[in-house]
Amino acid sequence: MKNKDILFLNEALKEAAKALSYKEVPIGAVIVKETKIIGRGFNKKEFLQNPTSHAEIIAIEEASQTLNSWRLTGTTLYSTVEPCIMCCGAIIQARISRIVYCIPDEKFGGVESLFSIFSNEKLNHSVKVEKIYLPRAKELLQNFFKTIRKNRYNFTNFSQEET
Amino acid sequence: MKNKDILFLNEALKEAAKALSYKEVPIGAVIVKETKIIGRGFNKKEFLQNPTSHAEIIAIEEASQTLNSWRLTGTTLYSTVEPCIMCCGAIIQARISRIVYCIPDEKFGGVESLFSIFSNEKLNHSVKVEKIYLPRAKELLQNFFKTIRKNRYNFTNFSQEET
Repeated sequence: MKNKDILFLNEALKEAAKALSYKEVPIGAVIVKETKIIGRGFNKKEFLQNPTSHAEIIAIEEASQTLNSWRLTGTTLYSTVEPCIMCCGAIIQARISRIVYCIPDEKFGGVESLFSIFSNEKLNHSVKVEKIYLPRAKELLQNFFKTIRKNRYNFTNFSQEET
Repeated sequence: MKNKDILFLNEALKEAAKALSYKEVPIGAVIVKETKIIGRGFNKKEFLQNPTSHAEIIAIEEASQTLNSWRLTGTTLYSTVEPCIMCCGAIIQARISRIVYCIPDEKFGGVESLFSIFSNEKLNHSVKVEKIYLPRAKELLQNFFKTIRKNRYNFTNFSQEET
């Protein structure tokens, strides 16, 4: 199972890398039924100016189109980062059976960071959660934020020169 | 404030009534900036076979298109029913400032029923919450589920006759 999981997490990482070319925070996701990818997505929030355009939401919507059903029971969602509260809620709404992700999101994460959404016993749907750390997921984010900070620094210097 | 809130909740109720004509669970939402509605939505989950097509998500996406921005700071979201976990997360992602709703959702509600998402002190965004009970919100849901049960009963009787 772990080899298969790493294979699909690498597909999610390919999605995350695509986000970089859109200058978006590099997060990617894929949804798998049996051994087939039925939905893919990467963060497009800034590009689309749409607050719901997270990698997981885009992948869920594509998977629902593929199956022509809102029920994604029996599927696994792979994400490079811990899903946020919105995406955890979407995972429940879509009845996704299992999720696998690489690194936590301390600011918005709904699996372990801000809430443990899937541990709520009142929920009428259960989601299996697995964490597999792949360094590439963290590297992508770290490099992205390093570039952002560097550009901001350059911009600040530039602004100071201008005024 | 309350008169204005009731006015906009009634607009959300108009959206909920539209959902009925799609044979959807009747939930509606509008988003207001100052005194103008900038987004409207009603539940279309079954119609679109999309698990994310809740009234609030559709209204948020429309409001972002209207403002050409994912940031909906300073807006109020009116919903006929307590937003679910996914929609609470989307409200945070969109930086919506205030929400008003009519009735709780014991099965999926993220404001008071399953979680108190907006009370989490670790969140870097705060959302004001108000509840204004309008009987019409409950009536719409009750009538919808009564019809569903009746049809199911008729279908069961029919099936029993068939076998």
